[in-house]
Amino acid sequence: MYSSVSFLGGGSFGTALSVILAKKGVKVNLWDRNESIVEDINVKRENIKYLHGVVIPQDVKASNDAEDVIEKGEVLVLSVPSQAVREVLINFKNFIREDQIIVNIAKGIEEKSGKRLSKVIQEELPLNKVVVLSGPSHAEEVARDIPTTVAVSSENMEYAKKIQDLFMTNKFRIYTNEDIIGVEIGGAVKNVIALACGISDGIGYGDNSKAALMTRGIAEIVRIGEKLGGRRETFSGLTGIGDLIVTCTSVHSRNRRAGILIGQGVPVNRAVDEVGMVVEGIKACRAFYELKEKLNVQMPITEALYSILFQGKEPKYTVYELMTRAKKDEVY
Amino acid sequence: MYSSVSFLGGGSFGTALSVILAKKGVKVNLWDRNESIVEDINVKRENIKYLHGVVIPQDVKASNDAEDVIEKGEVLVLSVPSQAVREVLINFKNFIREDQIIVNIAKGIEEKSGKRLSKVIQEELPLNKVVVLSGPSHAEEVARDIPTTVAVSSENMEYAKKIQDLFMTNKFRIYTNEDIIGVEIGGAVKNVIALACGISDGIGYGDNSKAALMTRGIAEIVRIGEKLGGRRETFSGLTGIGDLIVTCTSVHSRNRRAGILIGQGVPVNRAVDEVGMVVEGIKACRAFYELKEKLNVQMPITEALYSILFQGKEPKYTVYELMTRAKKDEVY
Repeated sequence: MYSSVSFLGGGSFGTALSVILAKKGVKVNLWDRNESIVEDINVKRENIKYLHGVVIPQDVKASNDAEDVIEKGEVLVLSVPSQAVREVLINFKNFIREDQIIVNIAKGIEEKSGKRLSKVIQEELPLNKVVVLSGPSHAEEVARDIPTTVAVSSENMEYAKKIQDLFMTNKFRIYTNEDIIGVEIGGAVKNVIALACGISDGIGYGDNSKAALMTRGIAEIVRIGEKLGGRRETFSGLTGIGDLIVTCTSVHSRNRRAGILIGQGVPVNRAVDEVGMVVEGIKACRAFYELKEKLNVQMPITEALYSILFQGKEPKYTVYELMTRAKKDEVY
Repeated sequence: MYSSVSFLGGGSFGTALSVILAKKGVKVNLWDRNESIVEDINVKRENIKYLHGVVIPQDVKASNDAEDVIEKGEVLVLSVPSQAVREVLINFKNFIREDQIIVNIAKGIEEKSGKRLSKVIQEELPLNKVVVLSGPSHAEEVARDIPTTVAVSSENMEYAKKIQDLFMTNKFRIYTNEDIIGVEIGGAVKNVIALACGISDGIGYGDNSKAALMTRGIAEIVRIGEKLGGRRETFSGLTGIGDLIVTCTSVHSRNRRAGILIGQGVPVNRAVDEVGMVVEGIKACRAFYELKEKLNVQMPITEALYSILFQGKEPKYTVYELMTRAKKDEVY
């Protein structure tokens, strides 16, 4: 079992996982470039900006010195937003040893290349083992020991199993899943659907409308996911439907919150500012829009969202149009 | 197109559908045995008990005289609770003509026999055509013209298409689905899962916990549904996942509300009394428990719920046990 873990990025989920590990007796070091986050963690024992109200154990040590933090961990958790993964690795790869296990917890695909994040990591660190962790797991609940289940996956499943043992507690349950493509794609597309569901909520539509949107959203995830090589069963599991449900219905979801504002008529940029954290669904929308065009996959929700986010279409009209497409036979 | 429809039962969904039809110019007659519901509809133009705050058009005429109501409709909508379907048909079958189309909107299976409701109807009315209507459609939203999508199915799809035309509006979208077994089973099992999700909420568990429960719930629906002859795609659609989502997350769901009370420690009978309407999931739980035993299908959520409802097991311990079963590989 690993006894030391370093986190790159002090966001909400990374911080929550650091709390879990520290409580298990693991030595945790956490790097963030933001000085006030580091100080808040070290002095106030709280990540005020991203995980308000959760006490962070003494065994979590934060620092702005990436080299020092990286050096101290057998396992390196990448806890930065998805679009920062490559940049962080480029900046710090000289500090990273080949024997360090890389665990990615960001959900998304690289905007420009459409690549899965584990591929991005492998390109930058070709000799390291990469594990991804994904599933329905709002950080606020994970940190508060509310029962949560997630999945880990890897091209080297023996390392996925080690990471499973590392993080597992009786409240934070971890399953293994061999389908890394399905796990990563499900986690990325669901943010697109959550943003669309938020818009539906923001317009003032109801639970019936959102359930219909989520149901079609799942069909959309399956279509693009299978085309990219993922397995249908994975999309029916925790990292697919499970994560979609939590993101589309929870009060904690930033993607949904941004969508609600957009649905209420707030311009996209201002909505993102108001949420105050990275809204993964926006970049994911553009990336999947380009992928679907290239691969010729039907993704009407992604397309509708793209037209709202990047082409100035009216949310209300667009969502309504989406929900009432002339399609009379229910086929998925 | 049919121009007259009679409803047997003035519950919330039946009343909502009667409003939709009346607004389309259909002549609607509605029977209920409760005199105050009939009077409220006819005099106050509101179903105060079951659909508070919705104005019911003049074209909806309520009556306690079943023979007269039945006589006036080309289409008969069965809008009674699932366990009352057979009883109502036995009582009134002598008034029902062979050319009347029967539309069932109750969700459940017959408790004693484990039979689908369309089968129950066919047994009582062997010469009538039967259509079922199901999907994520809280009555409160349907009546308020919030965009909603449902599916209709039948062993005679030409009649399903006629019912589709009858009810379709630009806010109430209806799809056809040929898999009547899947449509009926999905709608029935989801009430069991919703009750379990409510219990999880009532205990104080979070969105992560509920998402996990719903994800496994879907797997459970697929397992029993396929065994009974339904198609996997149906369970991924509106009447499966879609309806499950709306029932497990909405404030409107009675099954969920009953579950919340039970999770908070309220005895089952008192929880049902407090909800004040039929809680379909309780009878469905017993029926599916017996089916799963007979057919040897794994339904751990149904089993856990059964032990809470009928064997006095402690909700908190049971749900926790369910969520932390020793299962390390995510296989569905």
